[in-house]
Amino acid sequence: MQDISSYQDAFIDYLNAYIAPKEPTNLYEPINYILQLGGKRLRPVLTLMTAEIFDCDYKKALDAALSVEVFHNFSLVHDDIMDDAPLRRGQTTVHEKWDLNTGILSGDAMLIMAYQLFENYEPKQFLELAKLFSKTALEVCEGQQYDVDFETRDDVTIAEYLKMIEYKTAVLVGAAMKMGAIVANASQDCQDSIYNFGRYLGIAFQLQDDFLDAFGDPKTFGKQVGGDIIENKKTYLYLKALEFSNEEDKLQLEHLYGVSPSDPSDKIEAVKQLFVSSGSAEATKKEIENYTKKAFSVLESLKISEVNKNALKAFGNDLMNRNT
Amino acid sequence: MQDISSYQDAFIDYLNAYIAPKEPTNLYEPINYILQLGGKRLRPVLTLMTAEIFDCDYKKALDAALSVEVFHNFSLVHDDIMDDAPLRRGQTTVHEKWDLNTGILSGDAMLIMAYQLFENYEPKQFLELAKLFSKTALEVCEGQQYDVDFETRDDVTIAEYLKMIEYKTAVLVGAAMKMGAIVANASQDCQDSIYNFGRYLGIAFQLQDDFLDAFGDPKTFGKQVGGDIIENKKTYLYLKALEFSNEEDKLQLEHLYGVSPSDPSDKIEAVKQLFVSSGSAEATKKEIENYTKKAFSVLESLKISEVNKNALKAFGNDLMNRNT
Repeated sequence: MQDISSYQDAFIDYLNAYIAPKEPTNLYEPINYILQLGGKRLRPVLTLMTAEIFDCDYKKALDAALSVEVFHNFSLVHDDIMDDAPLRRGQTTVHEKWDLNTGILSGDAMLIMAYQLFENYEPKQFLELAKLFSKTALEVCEGQQYDVDFETRDDVTIAEYLKMIEYKTAVLVGAAMKMGAIVANASQDCQDSIYNFGRYLGIAFQLQDDFLDAFGDPKTFGKQVGGDIIENKKTYLYLKALEFSNEEDKLQLEHLYGVSPSDPSDKIEAVKQLFVSSGSAEATKKEIENYTKKAFSVLESLKISEVNKNALKAFGNDLMNRNT
Repeated sequence: MQDISSYQDAFIDYLNAYIAPKEPTNLYEPINYILQLGGKRLRPVLTLMTAEIFDCDYKKALDAALSVEVFHNFSLVHDDIMDDAPLRRGQTTVHEKWDLNTGILSGDAMLIMAYQLFENYEPKQFLELAKLFSKTALEVCEGQQYDVDFETRDDVTIAEYLKMIEYKTAVLVGAAMKMGAIVANASQDCQDSIYNFGRYLGIAFQLQDDFLDAFGDPKTFGKQVGGDIIENKKTYLYLKALEFSNEEDKLQLEHLYGVSPSDPSDKIEAVKQLFVSSGSAEATKKEIENYTKKAFSVLESLKISEVNKNALKAFGNDLMNRNT
C-alpha cells in the first residue's frame, strides 16, 4: 500500500483526463466545474487503497473510484438545491452559478455517467459493481429523505438518527471500499468485511462531524462552528441531550431550538452547556469511539497481512483525528 | 405476436405488482403516484412486442419493459419541474402535489430503480441492457438541454432541431425495442435494425406531434391545439416556415413569435396561415412520411417472418394514425 497522497495524485490525474469539454456545453460545463472544485477525494482514494490491500494494481480500480466520486458530486449538486446552499467548498454552487434547471439536469447526467464508468469491467464484475452502486445510491436517497423528514418531526429516535447518517453518509464509504475489493476479485467474506469496516468508520466520522460542529476548533474544523445549532438541526448531540435531561432542561433545550436570533452566540453557548451538563457530549464521544472500535474489530477476522491491517487502522485513526 | 392491448394488460399487471408501499413514504409515494397516472405504456409494450418478434416469451422482457417505463416517468417528473408544469395527464404534477425537493429526490430514486430492474438478467445481458440504457438516458438529458438552449437562441437549424427531437424522444423508442431484442438474444444486426426502426418511427411521431399541435383535431389530439404557438416554441413547422418565407413574411412570423397576447386565437390563426402559405405545413407532412418510410425500409433487411414484419408495419401505421 502506498501513502494517501500518492493515491490522491494518481486519482486527480485520472479525473483531469476524464474532464473534457463536451456538447451541449450547458450540460457538461457545470459537471466539469463541480468535479474540479476539489475536496480531499477520500472516497475514491479508499477504492484505490482497498484494491491494493487485496493484491490488485490500484490502476484497475481507477474507473470504479471515479464512479464513486462522480456519484458523490451528483449528490452534492442535488442536495445543494434542496438545502438552498449558496456555497460549496467556498465556491458558488451549480444551481446558483447557473440555475435550478441546470442543477437538476447536470446532476441527472452525472448519475448516469457514474454507471457508465463501470463499462470497462468484464460482465460479472460490471454486474457486481452496478448492483452495489444502485443499492448504495438508493440508500443515499433514502437517507436524504429521512434527513428532510426529521426537520419537521419532533419524535426522532436515536436509532432513526443513526440509520439516517448510515444511509446518507456511511454506506457510500463502505461501498467505495467494497468496490476496490470487487475489482480485486476478493472473496465475498473479504468484500463484506471491508464494507462493514467502511460503514462503521463512516458512522463514526459523521458522529464526530456532529460533535465538532459544536465543540470543534474554529481554526481547523473547516465549517462554521455552531452551524447545526443555528439551524436547529436534530443531531446525535441534541437527541441524546433530550434523552438525558430533566424536564426543566429539556424544555429549555426545546425552547432554544425553537428560536433563531440574529446574533446566535448566546444561543450557541447555552445549547453547548446543556450538551455538556446533560452528559450528551460525553455520550457522543463514547459512541464515536464505539463505532471506531467496531470498525477495527471487523479487521481482526479479515484475511490480509498484518502490514495492511495496520495501514487500514492508521488510515482510520488519521481520519478520526482529521489528519488526512 | 399478440395484439397491443394484451401486452398493455400484461404490463399493467406487472407494474401493479411492482408498486408497493415502501419506507420512507415521502420518497416512494410520489414514485407510485406518477407510475400509476396511466398513459398508453407504448414504450414498455414495444419492448415486450420486440422480444416476441425475435421468438422469446414476452414475460422474460417484463423487467426491461418496466425499466423503460420507470425511466420515462423519471424524465417526466424532472422535466415537469424544469417546465414548471402544473399538470401531467390531467393530474397534478409531483412537484406541485408535494414540493420541489420531493420531485428532485423521487426522480433520482426512479433513475436508480430503472437500473435495478436489469439485475435479474444474467451478467452479459445485464451489461448490454445497462450500457444501452446509460447511452440512451444520457442522450435524453442532452436532448432536454438542447431543447432548453433553443428557447433563447434565434439561429436554430433544422438539423439541430431534428437532432434534439431524436435525442429527447426517439432514441428511447429505439432503445425500448432494442432491449426486447437483447433479452431475446437476437443478433447484433437485428438489434441495430430494430433500434433504427424505433428511432425513425420516434422522429416521425414527434414531427407529427408538432404538426398536430397546430393542425390537429381538438377533439382527438389530447393536448391544447396551438399550445406550441402560444409558447413560441421553435418547432419544425416554425423553422421550416422561416426558411421558406420571403423577408416580409419572415419578419411577420418573428414578430408573432415575439408577443404573448392574453387571447391567443388571432395569433394562432395568423401563424397557422403562414405555416400553410410558406409551404412549411406541406414540407412537414413530407418529412413525417419520409421518416416513416425510413423506418419501414429498415424492416426490409430484417431477418424475421413476413407475418412479424407486417405486424410491425401495422403497429407503425396505427401509431402514426394515432389509433393505438
